[in-house]
Amino acid sequence: MNAQNILLILQAMNDPEKDVFHMKRALRLARRGEGRVSPNPMVGAVLVKNGRIIGEGYHERFGGPHAEVNAFDRATESPAGATLYVTLEPCSHQGKTPPCVDRILLERPARVVVGVSDPNPLVAGKGLARLREAGIAVTTGVLESACRARNEAFFKFMETGLPFVTVKFAQTLDGRIATATGHSRWVSSGPSLKYAHRLRSLHDAILVGAGTVRTDDPDLRVRLVRGRNPLRVVLDSSLSSSPEACVFRNLEEAGTVVFATDRRDREKMKRFRDRGIEVDVVPEGKDGRIDLSAVLCALAERGVSSLLVEGGAAVITSFVREGLADRFVAIVAPKLAGKGIETVGDLGILAMDEALPLRFLSVRRLGEDLILDAKPRRGGD
Amino acid sequence: MNAQNILLILQAMNDPEKDVFHMKRALRLARRGEGRVSPNPMVGAVLVKNGRIIGEGYHERFGGPHAEVNAFDRATESPAGATLYVTLEPCSHQGKTPPCVDRILLERPARVVVGVSDPNPLVAGKGLARLREAGIAVTTGVLESACRARNEAFFKFMETGLPFVTVKFAQTLDGRIATATGHSRWVSSGPSLKYAHRLRSLHDAILVGAGTVRTDDPDLRVRLVRGRNPLRVVLDSSLSSSPEACVFRNLEEAGTVVFATDRRDREKMKRFRDRGIEVDVVPEGKDGRIDLSAVLCALAERGVSSLLVEGGAAVITSFVREGLADRFVAIVAPKLAGKGIETVGDLGILAMDEALPLRFLSVRRLGEDLILDAKPRRGGD
Repeated sequence: MNAQNILLILQAMNDPEKDVFHMKRALRLARRGEGRVSPNPMVGAVLVKNGRIIGEGYHERFGGPHAEVNAFDRATESPAGATLYVTLEPCSHQGKTPPCVDRILLERPARVVVGVSDPNPLVAGKGLARLREAGIAVTTGVLESACRARNEAFFKFMETGLPFVTVKFAQTLDGRIATATGHSRWVSSGPSLKYAHRLRSLHDAILVGAGTVRTDDPDLRVRLVRGRNPLRVVLDSSLSSSPEACVFRNLEEAGTVVFATDRRDREKMKRFRDRGIEVDVVPEGKDGRIDLSAVLCALAERGVSSLLVEGGAAVITSFVREGLADRFVAIVAPKLAGKGIETVGDLGILAMDEALPLRFLSVRRLGEDLILDAKPRRGGD
Repeated sequence: MNAQNILLILQAMNDPEKDVFHMKRALRLARRGEGRVSPNPMVGAVLVKNGRIIGEGYHERFGGPHAEVNAFDRATESPAGATLYVTLEPCSHQGKTPPCVDRILLERPARVVVGVSDPNPLVAGKGLARLREAGIAVTTGVLESACRARNEAFFKFMETGLPFVTVKFAQTLDGRIATATGHSRWVSSGPSLKYAHRLRSLHDAILVGAGTVRTDDPDLRVRLVRGRNPLRVVLDSSLSSSPEACVFRNLEEAGTVVFATDRRDREKMKRFRDRGIEVDVVPEGKDGRIDLSAVLCALAERGVSSLLVEGGAAVITSFVREGLADRFVAIVAPKLAGKGIETVGDLGILAMDEALPLRFLSVRRLGEDLILDAKPRRGGD
């Protein structure tokens, strides 16, 4: 399809269709910031004048210029009188960069089309009101749910103050993450391992239990793909892990925090802290295990907006049982292991209709494996 | 696409392309016999003359005319000089109907194109040789593997004398077929239950263990869709089931066979036989359980060419452990049950790389569930 054809198609579309068309483009641009902007949101912007795109931009890296600013800076002609499409409401406050609303008022597009409002209720709508006062037409809610979904973690973090939690596991078709002897290398195949590393790079933090450190001694850095290392988090109530484990090395590349419940053994704690490993003491939950909500709060205070829970079974089970998982990524390998370590342990469920209901969001084949993406089904879902 | 367009496309194709095109059509026709012809194969046939289809047919029901005969009978003009496409080698022996080769020699098409040879080595190629001797051109092996796959059970049955075994289970995402209390109704949703009944109707027999009869008291007839009832098979070494269970009722609609290992309790046996339930005594296997190979042989003697194993876990585990499963159909429901009854029990596997390797053939969503179709990966696969 050449440019002339696209122009003809665009001219034939009515306004809502055009809005959806350009917002889809802005969403695709937003995605390019994936893994580089967190805890900021991914945002895309498109400038359209006389039916032609005259500028595009996206939020490229944390602390860098916002999508709207990049679109204005790259416009091939004056944005005055144009329509600006932006996936997220433009900011109206001074952050690391000046407010985007000021720049919009300066450039004077005739119309601004917004995907989804700012999740911060103190800010939401404020910038748009200023635009309207200045005589700029404003449309909101175009592809709203898709624009929201693009920044799911950001929205949860802003709205609840807690990180978005993704529970990831690689299991055999019969639901085993390891054999009865605890052997688990590897359940899935090469492409899935790469995918798992990509998933790590898209999260602010990655969490495992002390059992996994002991059994698998994982490194938890992003190695098989290019991308940021998440903060490494180990749940270890009694500080039983060896400070020599892989997860406690290469701290200059990827930080590690240990959450413990017992503050009495100062000697142990000192051994970790002397190596530059943070130790954070949180309360015990009702069941005598680490209080996971307290862990999530402590991570949020560190700016962690998205957390990847990688296991093992006990940790996964706790997150599921306490209803703290927002998303599940199951890598299912085409094999049967029989008796072994189960992905999810006791949830106290007696009848099948009490089982935790999920919804499959997507299913795809990757190499010989399957990647299943699911969410808990919550009220009305 | 209208008929004129199709004709233009066909004229532009070279011969191998045309052969594939028409064989695909014949394969689609063959499929229409699904669930109605077993233990005969599904076969489709297309007659093409001067680039146009002049006749089509398929094997419609067990004992009825073969695909080639139906295509000739329905031809809109003389088949003399035409090309006959048929998914399986035409029969050359007298069966329930006269040999198709005789009919072909009578109708005198110029060419016969065959998908796959007859699986019976005593018959394979014989009919084709007669056609060649009579001056009819013969091409074989067009879409061979697809034509073979269409009658997978028939081929296995003819080549090995044993039924093709499909192991089907409905499990939660975390691999549970029931909760810890044994409760399993229902793991999957409405559309999947219907699919499970369709699967039953496509098999000659359906097998469960005595535990499933006791716990679930299933009926095992095809109720949610239209279709034939398979022979119902219960593995019950010590004849511990109640002869009042659902599976032992409605025998006029669907027969039931019980396989036991203990022939001493004549009283128990009599109770079953008095109700018209067949009891077949087979040897014990090495592990003290029923010898599954003996069960398969006994079923084959009854003309069962395809067997659906529906559970429970112990029966599934035995079939997997003994390498007797040819295909797996896993219905995966979007839910987590936690601790419960595992789909596959102990296989004696210690290291993950010893796990039974499968290959996913297809993955599809059905309602809210997933249907995963897999095969054991055998040498070179």
